[in-house]
Amino acid sequence: MEAVRIVKIGGNVIDDESALSRFLKDFASVKGPKVLVHGGGKVATEISKSLGIEAKMVDGRRITDADTLRIVTMVYGGLINKRIVSLLQSFSCNAIGLTGADANIISAIKRPVKNNIDYGFVGDVTGIDSEILLKLIEAGLTPVVAPLTHDGEGNMLNTNADTIASTLAIGISSEVKAELIYCFELPGVMKDINDPHSVINDIDFQSYQQLKEDGVVAKGMLPKMDNAFNAIKEGVESVTICHANDLLSILNLNEKKGTKLTIQ
Amino acid sequence: MEAVRIVKIGGNVIDDESALSRFLKDFASVKGPKVLVHGGGKVATEISKSLGIEAKMVDGRRITDADTLRIVTMVYGGLINKRIVSLLQSFSCNAIGLTGADANIISAIKRPVKNNIDYGFVGDVTGIDSEILLKLIEAGLTPVVAPLTHDGEGNMLNTNADTIASTLAIGISSEVKAELIYCFELPGVMKDINDPHSVINDIDFQSYQQLKEDGVVAKGMLPKMDNAFNAIKEGVESVTICHANDLLSILNLNEKKGTKLTIQ
Repeated sequence: MEAVRIVKIGGNVIDDESALSRFLKDFASVKGPKVLVHGGGKVATEISKSLGIEAKMVDGRRITDADTLRIVTMVYGGLINKRIVSLLQSFSCNAIGLTGADANIISAIKRPVKNNIDYGFVGDVTGIDSEILLKLIEAGLTPVVAPLTHDGEGNMLNTNADTIASTLAIGISSEVKAELIYCFELPGVMKDINDPHSVINDIDFQSYQQLKEDGVVAKGMLPKMDNAFNAIKEGVESVTICHANDLLSILNLNEKKGTKLTIQ
Repeated sequence: MEAVRIVKIGGNVIDDESALSRFLKDFASVKGPKVLVHGGGKVATEISKSLGIEAKMVDGRRITDADTLRIVTMVYGGLINKRIVSLLQSFSCNAIGLTGADANIISAIKRPVKNNIDYGFVGDVTGIDSEILLKLIEAGLTPVVAPLTHDGEGNMLNTNADTIASTLAIGISSEVKAELIYCFELPGVMKDINDPHSVINDIDFQSYQQLKEDGVVAKGMLPKMDNAFNAIKEGVESVTICHANDLLSILNLNEKKGTKLTIQ
């Protein structure tokens, strides 16, 4: 099988109906086997508010309590996932919507209480069934994965979409080549955050150390970059960080856009 | 492939957490290839109420407006479908939750306005992809289908679960043998509605005509029975109507329970 592209799209695109439609039209045109992982967006918060469920915060951290879990299961697994799947179908992409529970593709455990912080129904991934995922892809399907996992005991769990994307990519890379693409609202990793023309197109592990030393990679990007290099160390071919609008020109036209991370 | 069993479970079981868990434990134990189709239950109505969305009725008929469609997509495709899938996983049944949009298994058109009645976003089924459904089953998966279809143009549609079950059974029967099982709250078709011991175990098309003439099959059962015999005429091996609690004894132990409809 050709390299599988695992593309992650964030909440900001999901919240914008025309941006979402445009992005999905592009994604549908991406050649070769592919997987889409989507984030949550603001709809869950809005619906929670309408239902009178307050966001629970402890020490500045959002807590997934039982009510919130019901909402995210409905919104991420139902509303958003089926919106994306039906739009992809309209663009002739044979999408199949999945959570971690479906076909048991992502199993997890409820995050243990640590330093007295109980995150609630948040799942830490324990396993990926890349074999069944590849069977779906071989059958001509494009998996669309919601940021939800399950504990194998009948409970859904809320899981970060970035983590799902990188874990899926690592899992798939044990069978076939996998490339991970994070789409977000910036054109890539920039030397100057205020200059969109300052995108650094290629970063290997060595130059990353230098960029960190020089303070070019800002605080907020550090965990994202560390996770990306971790995925590469675990077997993923490359990690690309780019604007959602640049997906097609990077993947189908090989244009130099966004930032591509490789081991060297 | 062995005969595929298409089992439909209604809203009353879905609304009762312990009945649902018991039923799913039984369903997980059903031998051979199988598909579960689930109804909606009362949760959608409750959540609509909490969100201040009134059920729209025209001439006593429920109308699926845009707000209601969002709710049923969330509740049927997200909350209920993932509840069932995660429970089945906990019973070692490798379930995969689907709507009609997923893998394009059920395409539909928005029901045309007729006699000035616009049902809103209700889908009349136009096609089934039984080939991909059988591929999923051959991969060891158990499809769990929510009562939702799509129009191929990016819109989800609300569709009756009984109809989905019979259409899927008819579609599958063009490839392999298919048996349709409707689980509901009664032990089967009864000679005397007040006597659970009066279940008629076998009805063929000829005896059905007699039962209708004699007035044994009551008004409410007529459309269900007509649809069942229609499915049989279209290729389904048999249609069984039984209590949810009797599923296992009928399918795995071959006990004489419920009512089995066959052509003769």
